[in-house]
Amino acid sequence: MTGSVVAQSLARPDFNGWMRDIQQRTERALDRFLPPADREPGRLHAAMRYAVLGGGKRVRPLLAFAAGELTHAPSAAVERVAVAIELIHAYSLVHDDLPCMDDDVLRRGRPTCHVEFDEATAMLAGDALQSEAMLVVAGEPLVADAARNAELLRIFATACGSRGMAGGQAIDLGAVGKTLDAAGLERMHGMKTGALIRAAILLGAGCGEPLAPPLAAGLGRYADAIGLAFQVVDDILDVEASSAELGKTAGKDARQNKPTYVSALGLDAAKAQARRLHAESREAIAFAGERGRRLAEMADFIMLRKN
Amino acid sequence: MTGSVVAQSLARPDFNGWMRDIQQRTERALDRFLPPADREPGRLHAAMRYAVLGGGKRVRPLLAFAAGELTHAPSAAVERVAVAIELIHAYSLVHDDLPCMDDDVLRRGRPTCHVEFDEATAMLAGDALQSEAMLVVAGEPLVADAARNAELLRIFATACGSRGMAGGQAIDLGAVGKTLDAAGLERMHGMKTGALIRAAILLGAGCGEPLAPPLAAGLGRYADAIGLAFQVVDDILDVEASSAELGKTAGKDARQNKPTYVSALGLDAAKAQARRLHAESREAIAFAGERGRRLAEMADFIMLRKN
Repeated sequence: MTGSVVAQSLARPDFNGWMRDIQQRTERALDRFLPPADREPGRLHAAMRYAVLGGGKRVRPLLAFAAGELTHAPSAAVERVAVAIELIHAYSLVHDDLPCMDDDVLRRGRPTCHVEFDEATAMLAGDALQSEAMLVVAGEPLVADAARNAELLRIFATACGSRGMAGGQAIDLGAVGKTLDAAGLERMHGMKTGALIRAAILLGAGCGEPLAPPLAAGLGRYADAIGLAFQVVDDILDVEASSAELGKTAGKDARQNKPTYVSALGLDAAKAQARRLHAESREAIAFAGERGRRLAEMADFIMLRKN
Repeated sequence: MTGSVVAQSLARPDFNGWMRDIQQRTERALDRFLPPADREPGRLHAAMRYAVLGGGKRVRPLLAFAAGELTHAPSAAVERVAVAIELIHAYSLVHDDLPCMDDDVLRRGRPTCHVEFDEATAMLAGDALQSEAMLVVAGEPLVADAARNAELLRIFATACGSRGMAGGQAIDLGAVGKTLDAAGLERMHGMKTGALIRAAILLGAGCGEPLAPPLAAGLGRYADAIGLAFQVVDDILDVEASSAELGKTAGKDARQNKPTYVSALGLDAAKAQARRLHAESREAIAFAGERGRRLAEMADFIMLRKN
C-alpha cells in the first residue's frame, strides 16, 4: 500500500526470519500453556485450542518481542506477555463473532468457534481464555520488583476491560448506523484495538530494564501511533482485500453499517492517515537507534500487511 | 434445615452484626472499584454495576474476611480479594443467564442483565467484570513477598478458568439430560462453585501470616467441604424454596433436566449429605480455635440459609 516509504527496511532479509522465529515460538508457547484437549472438560479445551492455535499473524506477540529488545528483556518473561496478550486477542475474536455481536461465520479461513462448536461452548471458551491469560501473565512474577510487576499487571488488566478492549467493543456496538468523526473513531479504536497493542508493547518492554521517562514517553507515542495505524490499515483492507486474502469476511464493516476510517475520511484520506501514523511511529522510536530496529520494522510490517 | 445442629453458634448476637458490616463494606468497595455509569461507555458501565450492586448474599466476601481473621490478614488486602471474587461471581451469573446458556430472566429478584440491557451488552459486561476483577486483585501486590503474591494470583486465575468455574459450567452444560453419580456431581460442582469459594478462603487467609502446612491442609479441607455443602444446599433450596424467597427462578434444575444432588441422591439423602459436609467443615477448622470462629459460623450460616 505504501511500499515506497518502507521498502528499504523490509528488504533486510533477516526481518522475515526473525518474524518466523517469533511466530513459531509463540505458537509453541500457546500450545504448551493451553490445557490439552484430552483433559476434562475436553470440548471446552478443544474449543479454546481451536480459537487460538494454527492461525493469526501474531502481530501482538511480535510487538511484545520487538519491544523487549529495546530493554534487553528476558525472553521467557516476554514470551509469557506475548502468550497472555494473544489469548486475550483470541478470546475477543470468539466473543466478537457470536450471533449477539457481529454474527460472523468465517475467521482465519475457518468456521468461527461457535459455528464449529456451539454458542455456549464458544462463550465459555472465551471466558476461560481470559482467565488463562491472567494465569500466564500473573501466575509468576514478570519482573522481580513487586511494585513494577503490579504496574505491568495493571496495564494489562486495564487494556482488557471496560476502559480498554471490552469498552471499545461496547462503543463499536453502539455506533452501528451512526456517524463518528475521526476523533470519535480514534477514541473507539484506541480502546478496541489500540489498548491491547499498547499493552503488548509496554509489557514487552516492561519486562526489561526500566526506561528513563523521556524514552518511556517515546515508546508510548510509538504504541499509540502503531495501534491506530493498525486499525486504519484494517479498515482499508476490509474494503480492498478479498475474504480469501483476509481469512475473514471482507467488506463486512460497510454491510454492517459500521463507521470506519474509510467511511469517515474516504479511501484516499484514510491511506494518507495511515502513512502519517506510520511516519509518526518511526519518528517516536528513533531515539532507540539499533535497539529499536525491530519496532521500526514492525511499523513497516503493519503498514504493508495484506491481511 | 439443620437448625438443631448449629443453632448455638448463630445464636451469638454478634455474628449478624459482623455479617452486616462485611456486606456493607463489600458493597461500598464494589461501588468504589467499579467505573461510574457516567463514564464512557456508559451503557456498559451501567450494566456492570447493575449486575454487581444491590443484591447478593456476598457469601464469598464473607468467607474471605472470615478466613482473613485466621491469619490476621490486613483488611485492605482482604477487601480487594473479596471484591475481585465477587466480580467474578457476578460475571459468571450474567453469562450463565444468557439465552445460549440457562436462558433465565430472574436474578436477585430483578430482570437478568441481558433482559434489562441486551445480550451483547450483558456479554461484554461479563467480560469486562472479569478484567476488572483481575485489575483489583493484581493491580497492587496483595502481600509483600513476590512469589507468594504470584501464588495467590495463580490460585485466583485457576479458580476462574477451564480447570475451575468456567470448566465446571462447561461440564454442567454437557450434563443436561444425563445422569451423574454423586462422584460426577462432586467433580462438576467442585469446579463450578467450589473453586471460587475455595479461592475466596485461600486468598483471604493468604493475605495474612503464612500458615504452617498442617494448618493450611485443615483450611483446604474446610474450603472443599464448605464449597460442596454450599452447592448441596443450593440444590435442596431449588426444590424446597419459592422463586420469591430465592430471588431467582426456583425449580429450574429439574425443569432443565440438570443433574443435582437431589435428583442423584433423593431429598433426604441430600440433606444428610449437607449435614455431613457441615460437620466435616467444622471439624477441619477446629484447629484454629477462636481465630477460626468466623469460619465456623460461616459453615453454620451456609447450612441455614434460606436463599
